[in-house]
Amino acid sequence: MKPTAILLLHCPDKQGIITEVTKFITDNKGNIVYLDQYVDREDGIFFMRIEWELDGFIIPREKLEEYIQTLYASRYNMTFNLYFNDKRPRMAIFVSKMSHCLYDLLARYKAGEWDVDIPFIISNHEDLRYIAEQFDIPYYVWQIKKDHSNKAEVEKAEMELLKKENINFIVLARYMQIISDDMIKSYPNHIINIHHSFLPAFIGAKPYHQAWQRGVKIIGATSHYVTSELDAGPIIEQDVVRITHKDNPESLVLKGRDLEKIVLSRAVTKHIERKILTYHNKTIIFS
Amino acid sequence: MKPTAILLLHCPDKQGIITEVTKFITDNKGNIVYLDQYVDREDGIFFMRIEWELDGFIIPREKLEEYIQTLYASRYNMTFNLYFNDKRPRMAIFVSKMSHCLYDLLARYKAGEWDVDIPFIISNHEDLRYIAEQFDIPYYVWQIKKDHSNKAEVEKAEMELLKKENINFIVLARYMQIISDDMIKSYPNHIINIHHSFLPAFIGAKPYHQAWQRGVKIIGATSHYVTSELDAGPIIEQDVVRITHKDNPESLVLKGRDLEKIVLSRAVTKHIERKILTYHNKTIIFS
Amino acid sequence: MKPTAILLLHCPDKQGIITEVTKFITDNKGNIVYLDQYVDREDGIFFMRIEWELDGFIIPREKLEEYIQTLYASRYNMTFNLYFNDKRPRMAIFVSKMSHCLYDLLARYKAGEWDVDIPFIISNHEDLRYIAEQFDIPYYVWQIKKDHSNKAEVEKAEMELLKKENINFIVLARYMQIISDDMIKSYPNHIINIHHSFLPAFIGAKPYHQAWQRGVKIIGATSHYVTSELDAGPIIEQDVVRITHKDNPESLVLKGRDLEKIVLSRAVTKHIERKILTYHNKTIIFS
Amino acid sequence: MKPTAILLLHCPDKQGIITEVTKFITDNKGNIVYLDQYVDREDGIFFMRIEWELDGFIIPREKLEEYIQTLYASRYNMTFNLYFNDKRPRMAIFVSKMSHCLYDLLARYKAGEWDVDIPFIISNHEDLRYIAEQFDIPYYVWQIKKDHSNKAEVEKAEMELLKKENINFIVLARYMQIISDDMIKSYPNHIINIHHSFLPAFIGAKPYHQAWQRGVKIIGATSHYVTSELDAGPIIEQDVVRITHKDNPESLVLKGRDLEKIVLSRAVTKHIERKILTYHNKTIIFS
Repeated sequence: MKPTAILLLHCPDKQGIITEVTKFITDNKGNIVYLDQYVDREDGIFFMRIEWELDGFIIPREKLEEYIQTLYASRYNMTFNLYFNDKRPRMAIFVSKMSHCLYDLLARYKAGEWDVDIPFIISNHEDLRYIAEQFDIPYYVWQIKKDHSNKAEVEKAEMELLKKENINFIVLARYMQIISDDMIKSYPNHIINIHHSFLPAFIGAKPYHQAWQRGVKIIGATSHYVTSELDAGPIIEQDVVRITHKDNPESLVLKGRDLEKIVLSRAVTKHIERKILTYHNKTIIFS
Repeated sequence: MKPTAILLLHCPDKQGIITEVTKFITDNKGNIVYLDQYVDREDGIFFMRIEWELDGFIIPREKLEEYIQTLYASRYNMTFNLYFNDKRPRMAIFVSKMSHCLYDLLARYKAGEWDVDIPFIISNHEDLRYIAEQFDIPYYVWQIKKDHSNKAEVEKAEMELLKKENINFIVLARYMQIISDDMIKSYPNHIINIHHSFLPAFIGAKPYHQAWQRGVKIIGATSHYVTSELDAGPIIEQDVVRITHKDNPESLVLKGRDLEKIVLSRAVTKHIERKILTYHNKTIIFS
Repeated sequence: MKPTAILLLHCPDKQGIITEVTKFITDNKGNIVYLDQYVDREDGIFFMRIEWELDGFIIPREKLEEYIQTLYASRYNMTFNLYFNDKRPRMAIFVSKMSHCLYDLLARYKAGEWDVDIPFIISNHEDLRYIAEQFDIPYYVWQIKKDHSNKAEVEKAEMELLKKENINFIVLARYMQIISDDMIKSYPNHIINIHHSFLPAFIGAKPYHQAWQRGVKIIGATSHYVTSELDAGPIIEQDVVRITHKDNPESLVLKGRDLEKIVLSRAVTKHIERKILTYHNKTIIFS
Repeated sequence: MKPTAILLLHCPDKQGIITEVTKFITDNKGNIVYLDQYVDREDGIFFMRIEWELDGFIIPREKLEEYIQTLYASRYNMTFNLYFNDKRPRMAIFVSKMSHCLYDLLARYKAGEWDVDIPFIISNHEDLRYIAEQFDIPYYVWQIKKDHSNKAEVEKAEMELLKKENINFIVLARYMQIISDDMIKSYPNHIINIHHSFLPAFIGAKPYHQAWQRGVKIIGATSHYVTSELDAGPIIEQDVVRITHKDNPESLVLKGRDLEKIVLSRAVTKHIERKILTYHNKTIIFS
């Protein structure tokens, strides 16, 4: 794999943006290997993901952000993020007691499916330490008291660890705690949660039980970025599975597990590939 | 097709029910061609659908209901319905302005897919009269005023027609009016609606617009029996289709149409086949 | 809807193509409303669909093809097609005896879902004339003899009608005849068929029966362009539905009908929107 | 969980079978907790799965098989299998080099999702020994030479181990070797394979590559019992995922992994629950 630069941007739609950006890259001897764009006609916003090879590219990578800022971002009122494919993102995993999502994440990690580092796992329980040990990954436990009296303190310690380890994004792999606004602000649209329902149906606790009580014929799982409003952040991925009247809350939990882990992992894949743009509490997912 | 009797029942679960019912049919020379049952262990309720051929069956069909009542229903505290496969149910269709569900229902009817009679179509608008004429089916229009001042009167006229024509069940094929409690009580669990969302998400008006605003990645449609609570009746069938950030409310409406008509027709099929039992605001759908 | 030009092209991949094409449109005062592209890295082929508004565009529409040919097509070794969104394509439907696909196509047509003209229907049987009459569309019957002795003659008459009516593309809505090479050559990648299996499984006759005999748990339908090799043309769209051991060939036929009509109509939609490019017996489907 | 007996049977369809079997259980004070049956009307075969609690059941469990044989099996020409829910089946896993299915199986096993023992893993390569060690399960490697000269010898050793460890069924978790007829005969309909295509499409090697070359829009995975004909045994479970022209063989392999592991695990679940009957190279899957 050759080194590439990945530019994710959005700005008010205007004629000629694609031409200018592609010309800039081509003129500077960059070989474009990916281009996808989307225009929200309602709001008049232009979104783009463009990736080009850095071999032979005239502008040095450490100057690239500055050049883009000067040449385009200010002129077009762009919001942009620049990544390099050879800089592996660092991902932290938060878990509670259920193992299925954690195993799925770590199995992919171990198989080399993702270009990512996972320096540690955080939990509020000891239960899954054995899995961390199976995979030789440090496992930190900070138990949050039922009255939440130590929650601020725990999050402070977690934030220090996240910072020290240069964590880029967080995956909540069935972590059964609400993340405080402080942590969310430090990782805006960089905390990925899996909710075990087809959102916005069955927000909050015990969604499988809610689904069973309502008598739905299909259940779902939803992966989304965490925002300060519970289960209401930008949706990244959803999937569903058919059920029947023979199912009960217990069998729904079992069927749901497979959904949860697959949906969460698809969302993590898209995030690692830098194929997600968020705007107005929605996601643009480039393919 | 040979004539059969179809018995749908539920009662408190008790050992020996299946044995007794099957023995009753076999002893009286009935050949069982379908048996499916389900036990709700939570509530201890037994549900069954059993169908047998009437040729050679000793008990005459006009006495059958009485025998079942005497021999089993009172003893087991059963609720039951008895049908005969050669008695075609009579179905009324209610529409407003959208044609896709109506065409789908009538195309199946015309192709002989369903063993059903459709003596008329009711609407609150003239718009779809041309379809009724294409298929030579009487089309009645009762316009409901915006202030609903004539709603009671309209429903009275509709109820008279339904009664006069011996209608067994009603299909709301995107009928954009709320059915009053009186009509619902006359057709309990016999009015089938199609709601253009994956219930219980996006109850009420403009669900595709709601879905687009929430940024979901999958949209759905739900067919359910109408109860007095809006969009909250027993769900019969649901299905979904994947969407992307490129969709807007208009494209969702288009994609949703295909879902709506298929989901509604599947529900109607199950109803016509007498394969649905309702209990506690849920459906048991025999396969 | 404002008038637009739609350019579909493919050529050997080369740096700068996007820049040049978008610059050409922008420089000539065209407002780009759609751009999607795809690069086949294996074969080094660039594919693009670009659409722009013609209001204010400097080059007159009757000169546009010539300009593109001169400026780009020869230089880049491009294969391209140019369409105008206000020029409705003309579509012929071929049917045999089954009505479900025909009804679905005509219901959409009548509802104005498609920007298309359907000047006539061709069949080898009288069976569906009543539907053509319901929709006031001319219905031509040319019966092909079992020994195919008159097939060449029939196709000659059909070709004349297609030509006289300026038909742009043909939809085989469960037309149970093999199209001859001559007709295929006159409409390369412009004859859309629906095959009632998940191709390449169950090619040829009686696919539902084949599926039942094999004991599959899912059945499918496939819409593809017709080529001289049976059921082997470029696939446009596929979808599936779950079945169980309780299904038999008859119930598969019923379940399959819904698949067939939806899959066929999705393919027709993409074709009408000029969002399909074919290359090496595959399709690129722009979204 | 209370101890239960599970009876799986099939025989020529005859009036009164359900009555007799349920009466036998009820008369002997067994509480039926599960009953599902199916009649293949084509071939006139009756299939049933019935499960009842053994507490208070009059016939001792070690005599049960004999009683069923004497009372029913000979009279009705039944083929039957009797299981007890408290006797955990013993399952062997065969792997080659790919880890995703193995991790998925072991994660479920470790989480207690399945009532099963996994005494060892067999492989033809050392590659996945580290996973066996993570989960503390013995890992045996018998390398089969490219010319297959030692295949008979290897299978003999494997068969001895399977026998010694009282293995009830085998799961081929992407085991890239063909199983010989001898081993298949020892485990008829008890060797579960996962094939990475939607069978019967793309039998044999490199199915994702075949799928990509054909240009399908959906890929699948199939779990089936192994028979002597390659990829042609009774299908247990299938599922699919949508792809686009942007996919290449490598991305199909990645997308397929999730399908493979979920489909394989669903099949294993059904097998462990004794909910599968095989007949004429098809499966009846009770729900």
